[in-house]
Amino acid sequence: MSVSVIMYARIMTRWEPDSRGRLEMAALELYLEQGFDQTTVAQIAERAGLTERTFFRHFADKREVLFSGGATFQSLITSTAAAADHDLGPLDAAMVGFEAVGAFFQDRRTLVQQRHSIIAANAELQERELIKLQSLAVALADTLRGRGVSDPSAALIAEVAGAVFKISFEVWVTDAESRDLAQVLRQSLGELRSLASIT
Amino acid sequence: MSVSVIMYARIMTRWEPDSRGRLEMAALELYLEQGFDQTTVAQIAERAGLTERTFFRHFADKREVLFSGGATFQSLITSTAAAADHDLGPLDAAMVGFEAVGAFFQDRRTLVQQRHSIIAANAELQERELIKLQSLAVALADTLRGRGVSDPSAALIAEVAGAVFKISFEVWVTDAESRDLAQVLRQSLGELRSLASIT
Repeated sequence: MSVSVIMYARIMTRWEPDSRGRLEMAALELYLEQGFDQTTVAQIAERAGLTERTFFRHFADKREVLFSGGATFQSLITSTAAAADHDLGPLDAAMVGFEAVGAFFQDRRTLVQQRHSIIAANAELQERELIKLQSLAVALADTLRGRGVSDPSAALIAEVAGAVFKISFEVWVTDAESRDLAQVLRQSLGELRSLASIT
Repeated sequence: MSVSVIMYARIMTRWEPDSRGRLEMAALELYLEQGFDQTTVAQIAERAGLTERTFFRHFADKREVLFSGGATFQSLITSTAAAADHDLGPLDAAMVGFEAVGAFFQDRRTLVQQRHSIIAANAELQERELIKLQSLAVALADTLRGRGVSDPSAALIAEVAGAVFKISFEVWVTDAESRDLAQVLRQSLGELRSLASIT
């Protein structure tokens, strides 16, 4: 790359704020103000001061704005679980992965809450969220197999860890006390262990 | 109801085999032979020797043929869990509910396997199955609250019980050994307890 290209890239970065981020913020604002169904891609682009063409360079459709982070979270969870202390049992290793995402969410609590309220208001978006969580459980089962857990135990523990995360996330995102997500995760895991052993 | 109406109903029951059941069998055959996407309601009605109008008196669409039993299973699971021995902890009570459905599936193993292979071949049907399982977890959480379990524990245990059922069902439905579903359920629960307690 020539020096002038590098300089140009630096100037663009400095002077033009990230279009992807601007589109995300504009979409989130509009979904909250007027509802997901009522919002068009044209409106999102206009609010961001960009063109529809730029929108479609970043996102396949208006739903994708809410779910494009999923792949990153999935990688973070599975790579953290894969690298977790090998003395940890499979459920604890999986939870270490979810705690890593918990810290990321914690730093962006307001944004995560806004996204959650948009999804909670729309059945189709809730279904999409559920399907993403299912893909995550499938990927996590693969990670656990990589840690030497055989099937069906790997699939079972991945599903159960996903369930603990799902319920903990719901508690945290609607929690008035603003407890730490990692703390809620550990508390849910403790409750599961205590309730599941009563026979 | 007059005697003649009752007699007519009896004759109809005796001489005309149940149209709903005939439509279900015809649909299952066609989905297996040529795929779900390639099958039309007209073909199902023709195979059953009935009209499309009769089909739509029983089912909203061709997908519904595969999922209309869901409400019955949900009632069976939640009512059995609600009535389970009050000394049982919430996870065991939920599992008693799932075991009731297990016995029903066990008696119809071939049909259940056929339905499963149709769903496994189609992403849209898999998503529908996932959403139905989610509704079941919500209903089961309500049952556990009725047994005095507070939230978020009720929601957590309902999700975990759903996960145990999901994985057990997948093991059972593809199992060459034809073990009993109730037995697979108990084995999965045992594995969860053993793997979840290792720290």
